[in-house]
Amino acid sequence: MTPVIEILIIGNEILSGRTRDQNASYMIEGLMKAGFSVSYISVVGDTLSDLAGAFRTAVDRSDIVFATGGLGPTSDDLTVQALAAAFGCELILDEKVLKHIEALFRRRNRIMSDSNRKQAYIPVGAVSIENAIGSAPGVLFERDGCSIYLMPGVPYEMQAMFDRMILPRVIESYIPVPPDAATVSVSGITESELYDRIGNLPGACDSFFYYPGPDGIVVRILTGKDAPLGAGALRDEVVGLLGDLVFSTNGESIEQVVGALLTRSHLTVGVAESCTGGLVTDRLTNVPGSSAYLLAGVVAYSNESKHELLGVDPGLIMQHGAVSAEVAGALADGIRRVTGANIGISTTGIAGPGGGSAEKPVGLMYTGISSSSGTDIKELQFVEDRLINKRRMSHAVLNMLRFHLKKRFEGL
Amino acid sequence: MTPVIEILIIGNEILSGRTRDQNASYMIEGLMKAGFSVSYISVVGDTLSDLAGAFRTAVDRSDIVFATGGLGPTSDDLTVQALAAAFGCELILDEKVLKHIEALFRRRNRIMSDSNRKQAYIPVGAVSIENAIGSAPGVLFERDGCSIYLMPGVPYEMQAMFDRMILPRVIESYIPVPPDAATVSVSGITESELYDRIGNLPGACDSFFYYPGPDGIVVRILTGKDAPLGAGALRDEVVGLLGDLVFSTNGESIEQVVGALLTRSHLTVGVAESCTGGLVTDRLTNVPGSSAYLLAGVVAYSNESKHELLGVDPGLIMQHGAVSAEVAGALADGIRRVTGANIGISTTGIAGPGGGSAEKPVGLMYTGISSSSGTDIKELQFVEDRLINKRRMSHAVLNMLRFHLKKRFEGL
Repeated sequence: MTPVIEILIIGNEILSGRTRDQNASYMIEGLMKAGFSVSYISVVGDTLSDLAGAFRTAVDRSDIVFATGGLGPTSDDLTVQALAAAFGCELILDEKVLKHIEALFRRRNRIMSDSNRKQAYIPVGAVSIENAIGSAPGVLFERDGCSIYLMPGVPYEMQAMFDRMILPRVIESYIPVPPDAATVSVSGITESELYDRIGNLPGACDSFFYYPGPDGIVVRILTGKDAPLGAGALRDEVVGLLGDLVFSTNGESIEQVVGALLTRSHLTVGVAESCTGGLVTDRLTNVPGSSAYLLAGVVAYSNESKHELLGVDPGLIMQHGAVSAEVAGALADGIRRVTGANIGISTTGIAGPGGGSAEKPVGLMYTGISSSSGTDIKELQFVEDRLINKRRMSHAVLNMLRFHLKKRFEGL
Repeated sequence: MTPVIEILIIGNEILSGRTRDQNASYMIEGLMKAGFSVSYISVVGDTLSDLAGAFRTAVDRSDIVFATGGLGPTSDDLTVQALAAAFGCELILDEKVLKHIEALFRRRNRIMSDSNRKQAYIPVGAVSIENAIGSAPGVLFERDGCSIYLMPGVPYEMQAMFDRMILPRVIESYIPVPPDAATVSVSGITESELYDRIGNLPGACDSFFYYPGPDGIVVRILTGKDAPLGAGALRDEVVGLLGDLVFSTNGESIEQVVGALLTRSHLTVGVAESCTGGLVTDRLTNVPGSSAYLLAGVVAYSNESKHELLGVDPGLIMQHGAVSAEVAGALADGIRRVTGANIGISTTGIAGPGGGSAEKPVGLMYTGISSSSGTDIKELQFVEDRLINKRRMSHAVLNMLRFHLKKRFEGL
């Protein structure tokens, strides 16, 4: 049986945005690796009635609840009280927990206060779980077939308790099957076009998850043990249907893919950027080892710098404008010449919000790619804001470089 | 009346930990500024029954529900269907939305598919909300005194819709008392040092929220109407205590602050980057209008390009290494000379993970700043991974440029 799992994050500091919760993602990772999935994550403040309501909702819809936070000694820590109130239980002193807290304070040479004694009370019928690090015990409470685990909110206390005391117990009870998974990254296609092309594959409806962004769309394939096709077989079908639109099948970014192609081919590259303002070079240099193939980048923002740094003819800019196919080509040729790289790539365009005209609107961009076999130019039109236009354009030029490198390989 | 507010984040990608949700914290910030507080945050996957249950739970306990995600064209986008199923409504075609989607596809020169037509269906009785950027419309659905707003999951689409179309409407309905707010952005100090210096100000304990990141720490100050000091007074106290560590008091990024200083001073800048690989120039060009003061950037990644593009003496590199104070100075001088800019700034260092040695470990970086009054060099040591080292270093050099510009102003 696959349990319905809910994570309950407790604390005003999370709700107010004052602290960023780390516990949910920590538990999710451990659970996914073990073959579980999480159905709900809830965040609720330190209010007796809100908390009690959240516990009742969780018991109604889930088989296992992992709750963190609100077990401290202060007056705003109400998790145990709320759990007892939600299901009409009394609190009783757990002698084992009291001894643990007393020993902890002795070891730290600290005086134990009444508020710490409060932490030794748990709901009648619940079982305490040892906290190896701090004073707040964990609690396991079962009601109507649902197991509720309370854990401290302090990440390292919670992590130790979850990993050592709780997750092994849950795995033993449910014996999950870790899922079969694959990833396909595509670009140059809208999400709806993509869906039209691969959404009818057998099992796609249940197994395909689409994550669109400025770098294209990542399709995650997750198949259970009863699926008609495994994740690897589905990935191969997708690649067969989409061909060159696929830039990666292992989760790698476009800059990692291009970096691997450049490394394998022993080719070097130089980058001349105008509208992308350094972002293309920044992305290439995010890959460790990129100094082996990236010789230099020039952000030729002013017209003078296009001429002085890259030798672009001022007459060409005068005649066609800085945003033109001609200047994109001259920039790519120029960076190849001044760096001595095998390949020169370039961008020029209008990132926005200003600088557009009827003839050349915001988002119009040209990319060039120069090599010993000639210079290719591509015109693109983006429609979003400055930062997203820059990002989409940087992806487009890196993807164009990928095509160029692939063609060279296939020509060998 | 103070409404009970719930945020509902929809999507398997969030539940599986694959994507980190940004929408909840964005909405929380806007709501807190307006004087609201959030009682529940829930995350639920793209499952019809789980979603319908989450909507019913939300209507039972909350007055306003802000839901994001699951409005896309693919089969795993089920939010609208689940809302209709939860409350037994049919879906009908919204002609206004259909026209909007058709126009969007025409503008992008793309063919609209049937799956996009699906996005124009909303529950009977609901009102569509315009999406200024993408195809998925927002939806307002009211049931049993609860208002449910559906928004796209893509952050920039969601943010535009929330800020322009939804939050103003909610403010108008409830007329909350906004807390008094202020922001102070600081860098060059750890979070615990910062806390030691400002954490004892009157009311700081309840009113200060700390957001650390690679660009320093943003301190948000939010005070209620009974606070001993208002947010503005507290901000002035913080600025008085921290002085030059503060780089912004209006939420502006360091590149915006530097851009404003360059604009006011009519000075131009050129950037020579090695270890930051284009990130400094990319950040400067993220600011609209930056072409007025940024002449050019050169990413001189190879030693040859340092010489050929920026005239750095190869003997200097041989003697001191590319990662040295001397080369940082020569890079800054070089970019100033070749661009004719008033100021040249530079970075050189070891971003990692490879390339470190006992003498020059990973994270060692030098930044230079060159002007008519001479060349200043600063040595820095970062300790994190490649991407964070690049980001921290880009902040450091922009902050150094800020100091330089401020000193020039004060010297006038």
